[in-house]
Amino acid sequence: MLGVDPGTTATGYGVVERPEAGPYRLVECGVIRPPAKRPLAGKLDAIFTELEGLIARHRPSALAVENVFVARNARSALVLGHARGVILLAAQQAGLPVHEMPPAVIKKAVVGTGNASKEQVQFMVARLLRLKKAPEPADAADGVAAALACCLAPTLPTIAEANAAPRGRVVRA
Amino acid sequence: MLGVDPGTTATGYGVVERPEAGPYRLVECGVIRPPAKRPLAGKLDAIFTELEGLIARHRPSALAVENVFVARNARSALVLGHARGVILLAAQQAGLPVHEMPPAVIKKAVVGTGNASKEQVQFMVARLLRLKKAPEPADAADGVAAALACCLAPTLPTIAEANAAPRGRVVRA
Repeated sequence: MLGVDPGTTATGYGVVERPEAGPYRLVECGVIRPPAKRPLAGKLDAIFTELEGLIARHRPSALAVENVFVARNARSALVLGHARGVILLAAQQAGLPVHEMPPAVIKKAVVGTGNASKEQVQFMVARLLRLKKAPEPADAADGVAAALACCLAPTLPTIAEANAAPRGRVVRA
Repeated sequence: MLGVDPGTTATGYGVVERPEAGPYRLVECGVIRPPAKRPLAGKLDAIFTELEGLIARHRPSALAVENVFVARNARSALVLGHARGVILLAAQQAGLPVHEMPPAVIKKAVVGTGNASKEQVQFMVARLLRLKKAPEPADAADGVAAALACCLAPTLPTIAEANAAPRGRVVRA
Protein backbone atom coordinates (compact mmCIF):
# COMPACT_ATOMS: atom_id res chain seq x y z
CA MET A 1 0.00 0.00 0.00
CA LEU A 2 1.37 3.40 -1.02
CA GLY A 3 0.23 6.35 1.06
CA VAL A 4 0.84 9.88 -0.14
CA ASP A 5 0.56 13.28 1.51
CA PRO A 6 0.47 15.70 -1.45
CA GLY A 7 2.10 19.11 -1.67
CA THR A 8 4.00 21.02 -4.33
CA THR A 9 6.91 21.84 -2.03
CA ALA A 10 6.91 18.54 -0.15
CA THR A 11 5.02 15.35 -1.00
CA GLY A 12 5.39 12.75 1.72
CA TYR A 13 4.97 9.06 1.02
CA GLY A 14 5.11 5.74 2.77
CA VAL A 15 4.96 2.16 1.54
CA VAL A 16 3.46 -0.31 3.99
CA GLU A 17 3.05 -4.03 3.45
CA ARG A 18 1.60 -6.89 5.40
CA PRO A 19 3.77 -9.96 5.15
CA GLU A 20 2.07 -13.37 4.95
CA ALA A 21 2.48 -13.58 8.70
CA GLY A 22 3.21 -10.90 11.25
CA PRO A 23 2.52 -7.23 11.64
CA TYR A 24 2.46 -4.51 9.05
CA ARG A 25 5.89 -3.45 7.88
CA LEU A 26 7.20 -0.06 6.72
CA VAL A 27 9.02 -0.74 3.46
CA GLU A 28 10.05 2.79 2.55
CA CYS A 29 9.10 6.32 3.35
CA GLY A 30 10.36 9.72 2.37
CA VAL A 31 9.58 13.13 0.98
CA ILE A 32 9.67 14.32 -2.62
CA ARG A 33 10.98 17.89 -2.62
CA PRO A 34 11.16 19.41 -6.10
CA PRO A 35 13.77 22.17 -6.35
CA ALA A 36 12.14 25.36 -5.05
CA LYS A 37 13.25 27.41 -8.04
CA ARG A 38 11.70 25.09 -10.57
CA PRO A 39 8.49 26.39 -12.18
CA LEU A 40 5.25 24.73 -11.11
CA ALA A 41 5.07 22.47 -14.19
CA GLY A 42 8.59 21.24 -13.45
CA LYS A 43 7.73 20.55 -9.83
CA LEU A 44 4.69 18.54 -10.89
CA ASP A 45 6.83 16.57 -13.31
CA ALA A 46 9.29 15.78 -10.51
CA ILE A 47 6.48 14.55 -8.24
CA PHE A 48 4.90 12.49 -11.02
CA THR A 49 8.17 10.92 -12.10
CA GLU A 50 9.21 10.04 -8.53
CA LEU A 51 5.83 8.45 -7.89
CA GLU A 52 6.04 6.48 -11.12
CA GLY A 53 9.39 5.17 -9.89
CA LEU A 54 8.02 4.30 -6.44
CA ILE A 55 5.10 2.43 -7.97
CA ALA A 56 7.35 0.53 -10.37
CA ARG A 57 9.73 -0.37 -7.55
CA HIS A 58 7.23 -1.53 -4.95
CA ARG A 59 4.18 -2.46 -7.04
CA PRO A 60 1.71 -1.46 -4.30
CA SER A 61 -1.83 -2.78 -4.49
CA ALA A 62 -3.40 0.67 -4.14
CA LEU A 63 -2.80 4.34 -3.48
CA ALA A 64 -4.07 5.92 -0.26
CA VAL A 65 -4.39 9.67 -0.08
CA GLU A 66 -5.93 12.11 2.32
CA ASN A 67 -9.14 13.60 1.08
CA VAL A 68 -8.63 17.28 1.86
CA PHE A 69 -11.43 19.63 1.12
CA VAL A 70 -10.30 22.17 3.62
CA ALA A 71 -7.51 24.54 2.80
CA ARG A 72 -6.42 27.87 4.15
CA ASN A 73 -7.87 29.57 1.10
CA ALA A 74 -8.77 29.05 -2.54
CA ARG A 75 -5.23 29.83 -3.64
CA SER A 76 -3.62 27.16 -1.49
CA ALA A 77 -6.38 24.69 -2.43
CA LEU A 78 -5.62 25.33 -6.10
CA VAL A 79 -1.90 24.71 -5.66
CA LEU A 80 -2.53 21.59 -3.57
CA GLY A 81 -4.92 20.39 -6.28
CA HIS A 82 -2.11 20.50 -8.84
CA ALA A 83 -0.01 18.10 -6.79
CA ARG A 84 -2.95 15.81 -6.07
CA GLY A 85 -3.83 15.80 -9.76
CA VAL A 86 -0.51 14.37 -10.91
CA ILE A 87 -0.49 11.91 -7.99
CA LEU A 88 -3.90 10.53 -8.95
CA LEU A 89 -2.74 10.42 -12.57
CA ALA A 90 0.32 8.35 -11.66
CA ALA A 91 -1.90 5.89 -9.81
CA GLN A 92 -4.42 5.71 -12.62
CA GLN A 93 -1.76 5.15 -15.27
CA ALA A 94 -0.32 2.31 -13.19
CA GLY A 95 -3.77 0.79 -12.78
CA LEU A 96 -3.86 1.31 -8.99
CA PRO A 97 -7.17 1.88 -7.27
CA VAL A 98 -7.20 5.16 -5.35
CA HIS A 99 -8.54 5.31 -1.82
CA GLU A 100 -9.38 8.79 -0.65
CA MET A 101 -9.86 9.15 3.07
CA PRO A 102 -10.93 12.16 5.10
CA PRO A 103 -8.40 12.97 7.86
CA ALA A 104 -10.87 11.79 10.52
CA VAL A 105 -11.06 8.37 8.89
CA ILE A 106 -7.28 8.03 8.90
CA LYS A 107 -7.19 8.97 12.58
CA LYS A 108 -10.02 6.60 13.41
CA ALA A 109 -8.37 3.71 11.58
CA VAL A 110 -4.98 4.24 13.22
CA VAL A 111 -5.86 5.50 16.70
CA GLY A 112 -9.47 4.47 17.08
CA THR A 113 -10.89 7.96 17.36
CA GLY A 114 -11.52 10.49 14.60
CA ASN A 115 -10.31 13.49 16.58
CA ALA A 116 -6.95 12.10 17.65
CA SER A 117 -4.03 14.53 17.75
CA LYS A 118 -1.16 14.39 15.27
CA GLU A 119 1.06 13.09 18.09
CA GLN A 120 -1.37 10.27 18.90
CA VAL A 121 -1.46 9.27 15.23
CA GLN A 122 2.31 9.20 15.02
CA PHE A 123 2.60 7.27 18.27
CA MET A 124 0.23 4.58 16.97
CA VAL A 125 1.90 4.53 13.55
CA ALA A 126 5.25 3.81 15.21
CA ARG A 127 3.67 1.21 17.46
CA LEU A 128 1.72 -0.63 14.78
CA LEU A 129 4.76 -0.71 12.50
CA ARG A 130 7.07 -1.61 15.40
CA LEU A 131 9.30 1.37 14.83
CA LYS A 132 11.37 2.93 17.61
CA LYS A 133 9.94 6.33 16.78
CA ALA A 134 7.55 7.89 14.29
CA PRO A 135 8.77 8.22 10.68
CA GLU A 136 10.41 11.56 9.92
CA PRO A 137 10.00 14.19 8.62
CA ALA A 138 6.34 14.95 9.32
CA ASP A 139 5.32 14.84 5.65
CA ALA A 140 6.68 11.31 5.31
CA ALA A 141 4.87 10.33 8.52
CA ASP A 142 1.59 11.61 7.07
CA GLY A 143 2.11 9.48 3.96
CA VAL A 144 2.82 6.43 6.14
CA ALA A 145 -0.29 7.11 8.25
CA ALA A 146 -2.45 7.21 5.11
CA ALA A 147 -1.00 3.91 3.89
CA LEU A 148 -1.41 2.24 7.25
CA ALA A 149 -4.96 3.54 7.71
CA CYS A 150 -5.88 2.14 4.34
CA CYS A 151 -4.41 -1.26 5.27
CA LEU A 152 -6.36 -1.25 8.52
CA ALA A 153 -9.56 -0.29 6.75
CA PRO A 154 -9.45 -2.61 3.76
CA THR A 155 -13.04 -2.10 2.75
CA LEU A 156 -12.65 1.64 2.31
CA PRO A 157 -14.42 2.62 -0.87
CA THR A 158 -12.30 3.59 -3.87
CA ILE A 159 -13.00 6.98 -5.39
CA ALA A 160 -15.38 5.38 -7.86
CA GLU A 161 -17.45 3.78 -5.15
CA ALA A 162 -17.16 6.77 -2.84
CA ASN A 163 -18.67 9.00 -5.51
CA ALA A 164 -21.75 6.82 -5.50
CA ALA A 165 -22.01 6.29 -1.75
CA PRO A 166 -21.55 8.23 1.48
CA ARG A 167 -17.87 8.70 2.22
CA GLY A 168 -15.81 7.76 5.16
CA ARG A 169 -17.10 4.34 6.12
CA VAL A 170 -14.42 2.37 7.89
CA VAL A 171 -15.04 -1.29 8.43
CA ARG A 172 -12.22 -3.08 10.14
CA ALA A 173 -11.49 -6.50 8.74
CA MET B 1 0.18 27.83 -29.78
CA LEU B 2 -2.06 25.59 -27.69
CA GLY B 3 -4.48 27.36 -25.37
CA VAL B 4 -6.30 25.44 -22.67
CA ASP B 5 -9.19 26.27 -20.36
CA PRO B 6 -8.95 23.64 -17.60
CA GLY B 7 -11.81 21.87 -15.89
CA THR B 8 -12.47 18.32 -14.74
CA THR B 9 -15.86 18.12 -16.45
CA ALA B 10 -14.89 20.14 -19.52
CA THR B 11 -11.43 21.23 -20.63
CA GLY B 12 -11.58 23.56 -23.62
CA TYR B 13 -8.67 23.92 -26.00
CA GLY B 14 -7.69 25.76 -29.13
CA VAL B 15 -4.69 25.54 -31.41
CA VAL B 16 -3.77 28.79 -33.16
CA GLU B 17 -0.95 29.28 -35.61
CA ARG B 18 0.50 32.19 -37.50
CA PRO B 19 1.35 31.20 -41.03
CA GLU B 20 4.50 32.71 -42.59
CA ALA B 21 2.27 35.38 -44.08
CA GLY B 22 -1.26 36.39 -43.21
CA PRO B 23 -3.40 36.46 -40.11
CA TYR B 24 -3.54 34.03 -37.23
CA ARG B 25 -5.37 30.83 -38.07
CA LEU B 26 -7.49 28.52 -35.91
CA VAL B 27 -6.18 25.00 -36.54
CA GLU B 28 -8.40 23.07 -34.16
CA CYS B 29 -10.52 23.64 -31.14
CA GLY B 30 -12.74 21.50 -28.98
CA VAL B 31 -13.62 20.31 -25.52
CA ILE B 32 -12.35 17.29 -23.63
CA ARG B 33 -15.25 15.84 -21.65
CA PRO B 34 -14.29 12.81 -19.58
CA PRO B 35 -17.26 10.50 -18.89
CA ALA B 36 -19.11 11.95 -15.89
CA LYS B 37 -19.24 8.62 -14.10
CA ARG B 38 -15.52 8.03 -14.26
CA PRO B 39 -13.69 8.58 -10.94
CA LEU B 40 -11.53 11.69 -10.66
CA ALA B 41 -8.28 9.84 -11.40
CA GLY B 42 -9.82 8.44 -14.60
CA LYS B 43 -11.01 11.89 -15.67
CA LEU B 44 -7.53 13.30 -15.14
CA ASP B 45 -6.06 10.47 -17.19
CA ALA B 46 -8.51 11.23 -20.01
CA ILE B 47 -7.54 14.92 -19.99
CA PHE B 48 -3.83 14.14 -19.85
CA THR B 49 -3.99 11.56 -22.63
CA GLU B 50 -6.05 13.80 -24.93
CA LEU B 51 -3.63 16.67 -24.38
CA GLU B 52 -0.66 14.43 -25.09
CA GLY B 53 -2.35 13.52 -28.37
CA LEU B 54 -3.06 17.16 -29.24
CA ILE B 55 0.54 18.13 -28.54
CA ALA B 56 1.88 15.23 -30.61
CA ARG B 57 -0.45 16.09 -33.50
CA HIS B 58 0.12 19.83 -33.68
CA ARG B 59 3.51 20.28 -32.04
CA PRO B 60 2.65 23.71 -30.65
CA SER B 61 5.45 26.02 -29.56
CA ALA B 62 3.96 26.63 -26.11
CA LEU B 63 0.99 26.12 -23.84
CA ALA B 64 -1.16 29.09 -22.82
CA VAL B 65 -3.41 28.76 -19.82
CA GLU B 66 -5.47 31.13 -17.76
CA ASN B 67 -3.97 31.91 -14.41
CA VAL B 68 -6.96 31.53 -12.12
CA PHE B 69 -6.49 32.28 -8.49
CA VAL B 70 -10.11 33.05 -7.92
CA ALA B 71 -12.61 30.27 -7.49
CA ARG B 72 -16.03 30.04 -5.95
CA ASN B 73 -14.56 28.30 -2.94
CA ALA B 74 -11.64 26.19 -1.77
CA ARG B 75 -13.37 23.00 -2.89
CA SER B 76 -13.83 24.11 -6.48
CA ALA B 77 -10.30 25.54 -6.51
CA LEU B 78 -8.99 22.16 -5.38
CA VAL B 79 -10.84 20.29 -8.14
CA LEU B 80 -9.77 22.84 -10.75
CA GLY B 81 -6.19 22.46 -9.52
CA HIS B 82 -6.29 18.73 -10.30
CA ALA B 83 -7.11 19.43 -13.95
CA ARG B 84 -4.53 22.21 -14.22
CA GLY B 85 -1.94 19.92 -12.66
CA VAL B 86 -2.16 17.23 -15.33
CA ILE B 87 -2.32 19.88 -18.07
CA LEU B 88 0.90 21.51 -16.88
CA LEU B 89 2.43 18.04 -16.59
CA ALA B 90 1.54 17.21 -20.20
CA ALA B 91 3.19 20.45 -21.34
CA GLN B 92 6.28 19.88 -19.22
CA GLN B 93 6.72 16.30 -20.41
CA ALA B 94 6.51 17.51 -24.03
CA GLY B 95 9.07 20.23 -23.31
CA LEU B 96 6.60 23.09 -23.96
CA PRO B 97 7.04 26.37 -22.12
CA VAL B 98 3.92 27.26 -20.14
CA HIS B 99 2.50 30.78 -20.28
CA GLU B 100 0.13 31.56 -17.46
CA MET B 101 -1.97 34.65 -18.00
CA PRO B 102 -4.44 36.32 -15.65
CA PRO B 103 -7.87 36.73 -17.27
CA ALA B 104 -7.36 40.50 -17.53
CA VAL B 105 -4.20 39.98 -19.56
CA ILE B 106 -6.02 37.70 -22.00
CA LYS B 107 -8.75 40.29 -22.40
CA LYS B 108 -6.27 43.10 -22.82
CA ALA B 109 -4.32 41.18 -25.45
CA VAL B 110 -7.41 40.26 -27.48
CA VAL B 111 -9.71 43.25 -27.00
CA GLY B 112 -7.37 45.98 -25.82
CA THR B 113 -8.93 46.42 -22.42
CA GLY B 114 -8.56 44.26 -19.33
CA ASN B 115 -12.19 44.52 -18.29
CA ALA B 116 -13.75 43.49 -21.61
CA SER B 117 -16.88 41.32 -21.44
CA LYS B 118 -16.90 37.67 -22.51
CA GLU B 119 -18.90 38.69 -25.59
CA GLN B 120 -16.32 41.30 -26.58
CA VAL B 121 -13.54 38.74 -26.22
CA GLN B 122 -15.40 36.25 -28.39
CA PHE B 123 -16.22 38.90 -30.97
CA MET B 124 -12.56 39.85 -31.28
CA VAL B 125 -11.43 36.21 -31.29
CA ALA B 126 -13.73 35.54 -34.26
CA ARG B 127 -12.58 38.69 -35.98
CA LEU B 128 -8.84 38.17 -35.50
CA LEU B 129 -9.11 34.56 -36.68
CA ARG B 130 -11.47 35.53 -39.53
CA LEU B 131 -14.19 33.20 -38.36
CA LYS B 132 -17.85 33.79 -39.15
CA LYS B 133 -18.69 33.40 -35.48
CA ALA B 134 -16.96 32.68 -32.20
CA PRO B 135 -15.75 29.12 -31.61
CA GLU B 136 -18.24 26.92 -29.80
CA PRO B 137 -18.91 25.72 -27.17
CA ALA B 138 -17.82 28.38 -24.67
CA ASP B 139 -15.09 26.22 -23.11
CA ALA B 140 -13.45 25.74 -26.50
CA ALA B 141 -13.72 29.48 -27.12
CA ASP B 142 -11.92 30.18 -23.85
CA GLY B 143 -9.09 27.87 -24.88
CA VAL B 144 -8.84 29.62 -28.25
CA ALA B 145 -8.81 33.04 -26.54
CA ALA B 146 -5.92 31.95 -24.31
CA ALA B 147 -3.94 30.71 -27.32
CA LEU B 148 -4.63 33.85 -29.34
CA ALA B 149 -3.81 36.15 -26.43
CA CYS B 150 -0.50 34.39 -26.00
CA CYS B 151 0.27 34.79 -29.71
CA LEU B 152 -0.57 38.50 -29.52
CA ALA B 153 1.56 38.95 -26.42
CA PRO B 154 4.67 37.05 -27.42
CA THR B 155 6.84 38.42 -24.66
CA LEU B 156 4.59 37.14 -21.90
CA PRO B 157 6.76 35.62 -19.22
CA THR B 158 6.75 31.87 -18.85
CA ILE B 159 5.91 30.55 -15.41
CA ALA B 160 9.60 30.39 -14.57
CA GLU B 161 10.17 34.02 -15.39
CA ALA B 162 6.86 35.11 -13.93
CA ASN B 163 7.79 33.61 -10.60
CA ALA B 164 10.81 35.88 -10.50
CA ALA B 165 9.13 39.02 -11.83
CA PRO B 166 5.82 40.87 -11.56
CA ARG B 167 3.16 39.10 -13.57
CA GLY B 168 0.94 40.24 -16.34
CA ARG B 169 3.19 42.35 -18.49
CA VAL B 170 1.89 42.42 -22.02
CA VAL B 171 4.13 43.87 -24.67
CA ARG B 172 2.73 43.69 -28.13
CA ALA B 173 5.22 42.83 -30.81
